[in-house]
Amino acid sequence: VTSPRARHPWAWGWADRFPDDTQRDTLATMVGALLGVEALPRLALPTAADRKLPPSRLSVAALPAALQGFVRGDDDARAAHTYGRGYLDLVRGLRGDYAHAPDLVATPRDESEVEATLAWARAAGVAVFPYGGGTSVVAGFEAIARPEHHGTLTLSLRAMRRVLSVDPVDRVAHIEAGATGPELEAGLGEYTLRHFPQSFEFSTLGGWIATRAGGHFATLYTHIDDRVQAVRVLSPAGVWQTARVPASGAGPDPCRWILGSEGTLGVITSAWVRVLPRPRWRLSASVRFDAMAEAVEAARAIAQAGLHPANCRVLDPLEALLHRVSAADGGAVLLLGFESADHDPTAAMDRALRLATTAGGTCPGGVLRRFDAEGVREAASAQWREAFFEAPYLQSALVSLGVLVDTFETAVPWSRFEALHADVVGSVTEALQRVCGGGRVSCRFTHVYPDGPAPYYTFLGPATVGQELDQWAAVKSAASEALARHGATITHHHAVGRTHRPWYDRERPDLFAAALAATRKVVDPTGMLNPGVLTD
Amino acid sequence: VTSPRARHPWAWGWADRFPDDTQRDTLATMVGALLGVEALPRLALPTAADRKLPPSRLSVAALPAALQGFVRGDDDARAAHTYGRGYLDLVRGLRGDYAHAPDLVATPRDESEVEATLAWARAAGVAVFPYGGGTSVVAGFEAIARPEHHGTLTLSLRAMRRVLSVDPVDRVAHIEAGATGPELEAGLGEYTLRHFPQSFEFSTLGGWIATRAGGHFATLYTHIDDRVQAVRVLSPAGVWQTARVPASGAGPDPCRWILGSEGTLGVITSAWVRVLPRPRWRLSASVRFDAMAEAVEAARAIAQAGLHPANCRVLDPLEALLHRVSAADGGAVLLLGFESADHDPTAAMDRALRLATTAGGTCPGGVLRRFDAEGVREAASAQWREAFFEAPYLQSALVSLGVLVDTFETAVPWSRFEALHADVVGSVTEALQRVCGGGRVSCRFTHVYPDGPAPYYTFLGPATVGQELDQWAAVKSAASEALARHGATITHHHAVGRTHRPWYDRERPDLFAAALAATRKVVDPTGMLNPGVLTD
Repeated sequence: VTSPRARHPWAWGWADRFPDDTQRDTLATMVGALLGVEALPRLALPTAADRKLPPSRLSVAALPAALQGFVRGDDDARAAHTYGRGYLDLVRGLRGDYAHAPDLVATPRDESEVEATLAWARAAGVAVFPYGGGTSVVAGFEAIARPEHHGTLTLSLRAMRRVLSVDPVDRVAHIEAGATGPELEAGLGEYTLRHFPQSFEFSTLGGWIATRAGGHFATLYTHIDDRVQAVRVLSPAGVWQTARVPASGAGPDPCRWILGSEGTLGVITSAWVRVLPRPRWRLSASVRFDAMAEAVEAARAIAQAGLHPANCRVLDPLEALLHRVSAADGGAVLLLGFESADHDPTAAMDRALRLATTAGGTCPGGVLRRFDAEGVREAASAQWREAFFEAPYLQSALVSLGVLVDTFETAVPWSRFEALHADVVGSVTEALQRVCGGGRVSCRFTHVYPDGPAPYYTFLGPATVGQELDQWAAVKSAASEALARHGATITHHHAVGRTHRPWYDRERPDLFAAALAATRKVVDPTGMLNPGVLTD
Repeated sequence: VTSPRARHPWAWGWADRFPDDTQRDTLATMVGALLGVEALPRLALPTAADRKLPPSRLSVAALPAALQGFVRGDDDARAAHTYGRGYLDLVRGLRGDYAHAPDLVATPRDESEVEATLAWARAAGVAVFPYGGGTSVVAGFEAIARPEHHGTLTLSLRAMRRVLSVDPVDRVAHIEAGATGPELEAGLGEYTLRHFPQSFEFSTLGGWIATRAGGHFATLYTHIDDRVQAVRVLSPAGVWQTARVPASGAGPDPCRWILGSEGTLGVITSAWVRVLPRPRWRLSASVRFDAMAEAVEAARAIAQAGLHPANCRVLDPLEALLHRVSAADGGAVLLLGFESADHDPTAAMDRALRLATTAGGTCPGGVLRRFDAEGVREAASAQWREAFFEAPYLQSALVSLGVLVDTFETAVPWSRFEALHADVVGSVTEALQRVCGGGRVSCRFTHVYPDGPAPYYTFLGPATVGQELDQWAAVKSAASEALARHGATITHHHAVGRTHRPWYDRERPDLFAAALAATRKVVDPTGMLNPGVLTD
């Protein structure tokens, strides 16, 4: 059953959310002013006729009968599953360039159909690309086969999206991998998984696990890793299901070998995840600082105090402006939030505010307190959250105005942040100047740890139509090299995919790379799963 | 530099802590009464002359000169590194049976000497057994080679035990793997690793990482896993050092592949670990319940409330008695503790107590509050902690009185605990009755998670001299089979070793076992590291 509301063919999110020409003109004026360019071009949007797909190399009619009920080879299905939603995807979508469309799209409805798909593909020498919500920003599932493959098949989990069980005693839910955030939350009743990545509305549990997705919450349970009790994975060699126990010390954790495997070690079909009652108390505060460095110091003090805030985000002045945070007046902002389903977290908020003001912050608005005896539904979100979930829509619109706009994120020890930040801002600004003639870079912290922050950068500049891919590659490379120079990870929660592969290869131990390849050989002897990603 | 205080040759801990004959007689009377036997035998303790070692198959004199400075082949060194401190080890130590003594003991002083040892052993076809504090209770490093090996070498990390750096900004310390708990804590100054396994005084950081050791604290950061930022490992194939970042989403976590590898994937030489200021506030309370089930319900409510207590231990009546908890009067006890270096955790303690009393508990003693402006040194420990660290001494003494006494632990979802517990107690009691003519079983929770507890069982019964190993195997098997029947893990924090291997093999996914073997083949192509453990 597909939702009647249509996804946009190439831009982020729902088709009906893409701005009309008038809205685009307004946006072009605003962002043009930000970038200091007179006019941003309102680019023509592609029509269905502009869509260029290579012919499919595989025929549905030639498939075994058992597969024909859930495999499609038409161009609509192929185009809809070609790209994620990174900058490269948006540009190619805008151009109507679907050169990497898969030959087939399978949407199995149960594990036996997943198995049948894998068995057929293995026998046929077809590469298989596991697909969740299609929101990758790192070309994580792009259907590029190796020369020995006879075609490509994208395997969507979207027909497997039931919440199979919710155990209120253990607070564990068993959920099929293809469920999106809203789908699984709807099935959890009075509970919540409490995992809200920016892609929440469209991305899937299986995708989160495959990519070690980061959620909205800033401390403690930051990645989906922390919420997964057990996984069930089908690979060409069989089933990999981990023990359903709260913890174990028996050997290396088999679940952790799957987390982050990006479709290369098997198809995640379901998982047992830890759920919580929905929060009833929710406290928030916005703290202003004259200098970014002071806000960083406050965030560090709070991250190291054992207070576990739900929100602890530093926004530099430009981020504060872009996210419409009220306190934005040229200073940096620290957004603080505490939530609980069990108790009033006022004491923790008070302590965090004390640490923030000691570091030089002021909190003119005081603490916003909300209490909901029923438990807060996330849909009733604060302005910050709305801006947070709207950001990808904005990126798509800007791409249609000829803006080079993307984000990247990392994590680094506190002691290295200042030098990293200066180098990143300098290198990206220089690259934008060189390839775009100018641009802006902003920074916020999405997550903070006792040992360091996870800075998240947004950059934008005026692109040159037709040269966007090269321009982006130059800026992205400048950013990634700066991260590498300071020992910062190439990704805190966006995954590796094809985009980050060169830097990932430098970051991980060589022996680990060899071990991962050996593991893959065990579960996928022919190397048919997402070839080119992580291994090969 | 070795401490002048001597370790006991086979019993737990310091030699000077082993009870004298009078103390043993007193203990024999007390425990005899508990077991309902008239008199426990005070067994003769072995002298050095009773020690039976096979001759070493390898000669130090024949080693390359570079190794001779740190390799020993004398019987004292070999015997001292033969056994851990599990029941089987204690019985064999008491018998003077050192059949599995390694041929050589290497104690390299730096990484180059580790490398030289591995290179020589590989060329010579000698199996290598990485060794930390020698406190394994699962035969984790017993030097049993495979037929193709020409001898065995135990590789002790104890000469590599420096705290190399402490970063107060990042709150990360770089520590050599051979440091014991007290050694590393002494080097951390005003910080603490806050990891206190029962073996703390003797076990090492590298051993903790290799075995995924559990610490003293009952929630949140339960295993050493949670405190490790990065590891450095030397294997026969080279170095595996992970990135020093607070978090990353780049592929499966290379650090998590090492955690729990039990010496089979390389020698952990150092690690970067997250440290904390020592706690200043420390609150504790002891809550009494008429029924164990009520205490379990209280523990669940607290574990699921997001309060993160440092201590949240359920003790059944026998455990309460054995640990000399004051509230022990035939009821079950819940020990609660909250600690912080940053703030007074009274609000959290009050909420936890409210949850406990709602579940039927009473807290006649109220909350014990301690504040220490300097930060609490762990040595100044409460009665519970003293009893906790003393338990292994007691086990050794009891073994010398002919008592079959051991512990095992697991983790299981809350919803399965009641049935598991009944089965475990029933099966172990039945086995004790069958092989010993009677005995006792007690239970406590060492750790609690939102999705389940980690129950820890102690059993004891009168053994028959000469038949202890078979008797123990019968009871251990009954316990392990009960765990397996209920899907409980074979170990929450004692590791796998040789003792748990049969059940571990059933618990882990078969494909994971194959992947682990393939990984081992990459880092240790000849299978020389701790053969027989986890893989092979």
